[in-house]
Amino acid sequence: MSAQSVEPGGRQGASGRNKAPRSTEEHALVLVKQEPYNAETPLFALREACTPTQHVYVRCHFPIPACSPEEWSLYITGAIEHPLALSLDKLKALPAKTMTATLECAGNDRIGLTPLPKGEPWGAGAVSTGVWRGVMLRSVLQQAGLHESVVELLFEGADQGTPEGVNDGIPFARALPLDKALDPDTLLVYDLNGAALPPEHGGPLRLLVPDWYGMASVKWLARITALEHPFDGHFQTQSYVLERPGQAAHVPLQTMRVKSLITSPATGATLPPGRHLISGVAWSGDGMIIRVEISTEGEGPWRPARLVGAAAPHTWQQWEWEWDATRPGRHVLRVRATDGQGNTQPDVAEWNWLGYANNAIQSVIVEIGD
Amino acid sequence: MSAQSVEPGGRQGASGRNKAPRSTEEHALVLVKQEPYNAETPLFALREACTPTQHVYVRCHFPIPACSPEEWSLYITGAIEHPLALSLDKLKALPAKTMTATLECAGNDRIGLTPLPKGEPWGAGAVSTGVWRGVMLRSVLQQAGLHESVVELLFEGADQGTPEGVNDGIPFARALPLDKALDPDTLLVYDLNGAALPPEHGGPLRLLVPDWYGMASVKWLARITALEHPFDGHFQTQSYVLERPGQAAHVPLQTMRVKSLITSPATGATLPPGRHLISGVAWSGDGMIIRVEISTEGEGPWRPARLVGAAAPHTWQQWEWEWDATRPGRHVLRVRATDGQGNTQPDVAEWNWLGYANNAIQSVIVEIGD
Repeated sequence: MSAQSVEPGGRQGASGRNKAPRSTEEHALVLVKQEPYNAETPLFALREACTPTQHVYVRCHFPIPACSPEEWSLYITGAIEHPLALSLDKLKALPAKTMTATLECAGNDRIGLTPLPKGEPWGAGAVSTGVWRGVMLRSVLQQAGLHESVVELLFEGADQGTPEGVNDGIPFARALPLDKALDPDTLLVYDLNGAALPPEHGGPLRLLVPDWYGMASVKWLARITALEHPFDGHFQTQSYVLERPGQAAHVPLQTMRVKSLITSPATGATLPPGRHLISGVAWSGDGMIIRVEISTEGEGPWRPARLVGAAAPHTWQQWEWEWDATRPGRHVLRVRATDGQGNTQPDVAEWNWLGYANNAIQSVIVEIGD
Repeated sequence: MSAQSVEPGGRQGASGRNKAPRSTEEHALVLVKQEPYNAETPLFALREACTPTQHVYVRCHFPIPACSPEEWSLYITGAIEHPLALSLDKLKALPAKTMTATLECAGNDRIGLTPLPKGEPWGAGAVSTGVWRGVMLRSVLQQAGLHESVVELLFEGADQGTPEGVNDGIPFARALPLDKALDPDTLLVYDLNGAALPPEHGGPLRLLVPDWYGMASVKWLARITALEHPFDGHFQTQSYVLERPGQAAHVPLQTMRVKSLITSPATGATLPPGRHLISGVAWSGDGMIIRVEISTEGEGPWRPARLVGAAAPHTWQQWEWEWDATRPGRHVLRVRATDGQGNTQPDVAEWNWLGYANNAIQSVIVEIGD
């Protein structure tokens, strides 16, 4: 693999800079930051059960590394019996598993937090659902032969840079506890939506940890190290942790909190009086969605929405509700979801210094004309 | 005066219903509620130093009463020497005073509070600046001869209705402490922006209490009563009070808290890289604005904006700041103002049950293209 950067579309940049879309009308994503490239799924694309690849949100910490699939090797080292170097072909020769899963960036909806924490100013579009194909991580770890002493698996990407507060260049690196690494749904992924995983999504190979915030699904996965002690690297202990005012302990981010979005209508819409379908998605890393409720007057009452289609693990739930809108004027539409563990979205987000895991109830403001 | 209702434009409604604008593109105000009529100043009109009358926000508690200026009388009763009935002509024969003043609805920006309190879902446009003309209230009170025992003056409008939780129809009614009533800038107003005060703004006659939230400036002013005991009516003690969680006491709303708005650019704008003027307004009921600061990256640093034009009492302060926008991507522009009493806007609004006085720092989200 090479350290050169490529354009988000996968074409190698002559200038060495990652070019971002010129405007949201023309392009598939809503630009959040050009360098490194970070961009959201546009609202209309969140209406699809499965997000088209061109509309899947992109989160990068460093320039996108140019990785040749032909020359790619995944190295597995550390407290194991058999160090491995697996080419993409070798991985693809193993039994494949295809899984639909929703990924959400831990910083999704950071701009909904007040005061606004540091970090990329994500709106509500740092969430997407894809059909991922790859091999079970556990199969590869079984080949490698983990020592009894292993407590965590460390995953390093081919992307590198120097985060604020760090002295030297480091790769993006994140560890999983042993049990999550051995979960049969934790995958090494090489396809997205039926095609080779694009560079901006971590191609040729990424980790996929369903139900967890996206930082766990390490992109451009270059090395796995079996660890006998917990990893304390930057992205494990300084970043992607919940630091709350008045609490000394940093809580590492893991599962996605229960959350929901209204995807139609959009804020600012003017609608005629009459019946309108309000629709959207809801998801949770803590079990499937069992209830979605809608309020059209801000303060309630809450009315149950219809869940659309069969529930599937790791995947957002579409829902809809028919609104009989009779009163002209402004209406504040709100949605809240509840998951199988009984978690319900809060009215107010739990503020934290780094601005993660905002799952507060969303409001969409529309006008009914007369 | 008559109890019939009129259209916001001042034409008497054949149907008896107040007709509201059909859409925000066609009309001068942004509809919040059709009945009773409540509508905001659109963002573009907030860029004017003085708000054109057609764009001045409208707050009504009940249907707009149809009041004939020719038949109008203001009655002054209670603990006074000389009960008075003053026609509009009599009032206009008294020495007139013209004053520019900013009025803000106490519920302005209620939709920025989470959880969303009950009440009209006002955005940021329930604020306007007008040139008001009328007579000093103190002149009329001096004619009436207040008894020594008077502690408050009660103001009743010709508008009537039955608020939630009240058994009978009542007029909108609100009292002022004696010292505020005698302030030389508290006016009985019959003109707005050089023309007769329109019906939707309280014409033919309203009270104007500069520096206080709009609820004090009673519209369609029909009766003033000199009170020897504090008024405890609905709009004085049940509504327009700050009720905070964990606090038993209701704090009556009075002065407008220090606040500022970015009026250009608008949220959602896409701008080319380069220099852009960020501009807006700031105001406070507690003294003139002495400092406005801008942050373009959400978390700061805060940079001082230039105050435009001379400061004037009771009137918002225009400001501007030149932004050299070089980094493509999303930017969160924030503004905060400080008044002469040293009050500065908070990051997070002080939540209260009825959703008043939200003066939290505003964010405007824009994209710099590449």
